[in-house]
Amino acid sequence: RNEKLRRRIQQVGEYWKTHTQEEWYGFKIALAMVLSSIPVLVGPLYDYFGVNSLWLTISVIIIYEPAVGSLLSKGLQRLAGTTLAIVLSLICAQLAEASGRGEVYVIPVLLFLGSFVLGFLRQVWPLKKKYDYTALITIITFGLLTLSEYRIHAGPRLAGLRMLLIVMGFVVAVGTNLVIKPKFAGKDLHQMVSDHFSRIAVSLDACVQTYLAGTRAVELQKLLDGSEPEDEVHEGYRTVILAKGDEDLLHDLVIWEPPHGQFGFKYPWDLYKDISRVCRHCMYSIVAMDACLRSEIQCPVHLRELLARPMTRLAEEAVKALKAMGESVSEMKVVNLRPFLSAVEAAALDLQKELQEKTMSLIIPTPETDRWIESYLDEDDERSKASMSSSKARRSAVTESAEGKRASTEDDEFVEFSFPIMHVEEGLDDVYPHTDSYGHQSRVTPERSILQSTPSDLQERHRPSVELTYLEPIPPSRQGSLVDRISRRSSSRQIMVPVPGGIAVLSLVQFVCTLVEFAAKLNLLVNCVNNLSERAGFTDDGKIRSRR
Amino acid sequence: RNEKLRRRIQQVGEYWKTHTQEEWYGFKIALAMVLSSIPVLVGPLYDYFGVNSLWLTISVIIIYEPAVGSLLSKGLQRLAGTTLAIVLSLICAQLAEASGRGEVYVIPVLLFLGSFVLGFLRQVWPLKKKYDYTALITIITFGLLTLSEYRIHAGPRLAGLRMLLIVMGFVVAVGTNLVIKPKFAGKDLHQMVSDHFSRIAVSLDACVQTYLAGTRAVELQKLLDGSEPEDEVHEGYRTVILAKGDEDLLHDLVIWEPPHGQFGFKYPWDLYKDISRVCRHCMYSIVAMDACLRSEIQCPVHLRELLARPMTRLAEEAVKALKAMGESVSEMKVVNLRPFLSAVEAAALDLQKELQEKTMSLIIPTPETDRWIESYLDEDDERSKASMSSSKARRSAVTESAEGKRASTEDDEFVEFSFPIMHVEEGLDDVYPHTDSYGHQSRVTPERSILQSTPSDLQERHRPSVELTYLEPIPPSRQGSLVDRISRRSSSRQIMVPVPGGIAVLSLVQFVCTLVEFAAKLNLLVNCVNNLSERAGFTDDGKIRSRR
Repeated sequence: RNEKLRRRIQQVGEYWKTHTQEEWYGFKIALAMVLSSIPVLVGPLYDYFGVNSLWLTISVIIIYEPAVGSLLSKGLQRLAGTTLAIVLSLICAQLAEASGRGEVYVIPVLLFLGSFVLGFLRQVWPLKKKYDYTALITIITFGLLTLSEYRIHAGPRLAGLRMLLIVMGFVVAVGTNLVIKPKFAGKDLHQMVSDHFSRIAVSLDACVQTYLAGTRAVELQKLLDGSEPEDEVHEGYRTVILAKGDEDLLHDLVIWEPPHGQFGFKYPWDLYKDISRVCRHCMYSIVAMDACLRSEIQCPVHLRELLARPMTRLAEEAVKALKAMGESVSEMKVVNLRPFLSAVEAAALDLQKELQEKTMSLIIPTPETDRWIESYLDEDDERSKASMSSSKARRSAVTESAEGKRASTEDDEFVEFSFPIMHVEEGLDDVYPHTDSYGHQSRVTPERSILQSTPSDLQERHRPSVELTYLEPIPPSRQGSLVDRISRRSSSRQIMVPVPGGIAVLSLVQFVCTLVEFAAKLNLLVNCVNNLSERAGFTDDGKIRSRR
Repeated sequence: RNEKLRRRIQQVGEYWKTHTQEEWYGFKIALAMVLSSIPVLVGPLYDYFGVNSLWLTISVIIIYEPAVGSLLSKGLQRLAGTTLAIVLSLICAQLAEASGRGEVYVIPVLLFLGSFVLGFLRQVWPLKKKYDYTALITIITFGLLTLSEYRIHAGPRLAGLRMLLIVMGFVVAVGTNLVIKPKFAGKDLHQMVSDHFSRIAVSLDACVQTYLAGTRAVELQKLLDGSEPEDEVHEGYRTVILAKGDEDLLHDLVIWEPPHGQFGFKYPWDLYKDISRVCRHCMYSIVAMDACLRSEIQCPVHLRELLARPMTRLAEEAVKALKAMGESVSEMKVVNLRPFLSAVEAAALDLQKELQEKTMSLIIPTPETDRWIESYLDEDDERSKASMSSSKARRSAVTESAEGKRASTEDDEFVEFSFPIMHVEEGLDDVYPHTDSYGHQSRVTPERSILQSTPSDLQERHRPSVELTYLEPIPPSRQGSLVDRISRRSSSRQIMVPVPGGIAVLSLVQFVCTLVEFAAKLNLLVNCVNNLSERAGFTDDGKIRSRR
């Protein structure tokens, strides 16, 4: 019991230590609250301000956002809105007074007209997107001042007092928030965009590694039943591509922030948009590579291994270049990116040359290739079983979601990587040609599918096979033996003349092409980084040694 | 002058007609403002409520968001926050009173502690994400009530009055907003997700059409200089993939909305997330196809035409299926999607068969193929010029952005489709093999590049060429003539033995494979739509005949 208590205390202590940012915010808002309560608590001040001094608290707390950018944005919009409202309400007060006795009827009409115009404008660009808070404050203050003028007849004095209190609130809020451990949206944006580089690097590395290891089926299954929640490729894809919304929000805040830290007066924040745009496009290439990983058309692993060295090399060089760029942006120092880019280019050329040299080995079947076909066919059987069980898992997942027991939204991106499985209901032929992933065509009798699949499984399962026949002659010595061996092995399956390479190689070439395409995109990224480096005036030793 | 004035009036009239939604919002907020001013304007009521009646106006207007979901969310959070704050402030008042003389010192301490805890909690999940407004209102009201208790000593009566006014404000706001032309976030979300289907259809159609038409270069250039802002593929990609942020916001609001229109009590809004997730993945396939359009490896157009019929057929069937799904979701009616899916599957099989049959025609060179090579080489020259001018355009764009004169953020996605152009600084060979997009290898002497490019252009320009040599023998009859013809034509270029098919066909096969992959994904989408149709209880004739 004592042990339990101690562990609990330890947990709380750890939570406390890891949440300093939240604690500082709490401290700052508490301090602002106490400061804003002074006019109420101190006698002479209260005598001057009266009940209105309570407005100060509202003014301070309502704009007290954690990030400097949002605080300033809200505060300045509040000032602008109040000013505008004061002008409007003074006009209304004049009009109301001029109407004499009819004042009580004129005021609602004026309120209606004013609110209508302001409400309409609030919904119109650009107020709706960026200055919604200004419009809101204008409407509220306009109504408030017009109505209180009718009852209290304080004249401009009240409006002036309100303005004074709002200004004081603004000063208190900005003062405490800027002086004590300020949290800048710009820093967050900088961090977010800098992190893209390592995200891409990790995803790329994982993608190439997985492809070379040939662990397709495992990955797919793990993703389907959600047993591997931290897939690096998808985490990267989520954080880079889908970060756009968050980035846009930060961009909106950043423009309000004063120069701070290394981010000078006219820091080129807009270039961060360019960078993350290119980053997104790099990520699309990785998503396309990822699609190769999960495609039904798979190149034999031993053929992938023929290009393992240059592929790994290109991936490594690309990762190095990405890390260098990430370092340059993150630490704001000038890094000569040319050597990295040259290394990537050399590696890309190397990969292309290697592909060129290995074309023959890829196309001509070898004993290894034959063995792979056999094992792939075995694996195929296993996979059809796995697909059965995974489709069961999927069905149970659907049931679960039907019961409203959805997994947390955080990992909702994982389900979507289930590979499309299509069911051909009306097979155009009774015996339709079936191409396995190595491009070897077989005639699959419908009975086989039915025998190996449960009906419900069959409904969900169909491989979108690309049927291609390469008609080049095959060395006769190979031809017979392969057909013989496979025919002997499997009675339920009728293998047609195995054709070399073709489709299977396609998959490898496609992957390699996408990889090269990715490498080419790095050039664009380097341009962006260099552009930023130049316009932001990065220095050789890095302006910032250690941020946070 | 009279003419001008009339046109101006006409413009205003048209603007008025097309912005009914904004006008209704203006009307509703104005009405709410007038209603909320009654306690101030009507004598007896003012006698009862006093100055506090001004709070009603604040309460009404501050939560008066256009969408019902956000109004209810803000209103209920305001109620919850106020309730919580009243409890806290009553406790504080007790403590302060108990301290007697020390009250003026105890109150700031209590304020500090309370604000610190509330401020800390405000930054912690899940308050930060979803209930930020509750936390804000709690802090403000807590401070306000504690301070006014110190000065006014109104006791629970003030808190009760404040609560009453907030409830009244809530009723007024919800009443006017729900009764008159309500604007539901759910409807927006429904519209947004329904629109995805047609977006995908349009993008797919545009992608396949463009590919078959072979209008690559034009597209690229147009995109580079931004002369074609409404590219359907990219508009679709932006609105479908990058809509996630907006959708998440709407999902947050939708949970607050009461049943309305066809959206019943437990309408399965979470399934919309599944649908747009699969939609995003369909879009990724289209982005991959789009990459084929802009890739340096291009299949000759006449070879693409060999598969034009089945490709167009598959695209058409997919578009039909997408439209049917869109109709089903948008009009909330049960549509039997199986026939559409079967048609897509048949078209996919047809395409694959056709590809299989045409393989020989793809691989063996024909006079047409030869002609294409020549014209491609011509085009190549033109393109290198175009690339020069476009790189100039890009540079001028960079300069512009350097001057801060960026184009509006709306079209910032277009620039990113510039194809990566890489510069090889250290060519590994003096004369490195250059493969044109048709897979014909040429030896490009470095002089050629330098001759044809300005130095600044050279710095930005390099085609990431995939170098592959197909070593199969070529019919000798063709070999000579082609080489002769091309060698005669161009003196600065040395064409190596042209090799058939290979890389160029790869591009076509890659495109076709992605198209088939896309078609396979439709099955997943159909599952999602069927799931929604079932759980939402769509009817045969459509629950809604015409929305808006």
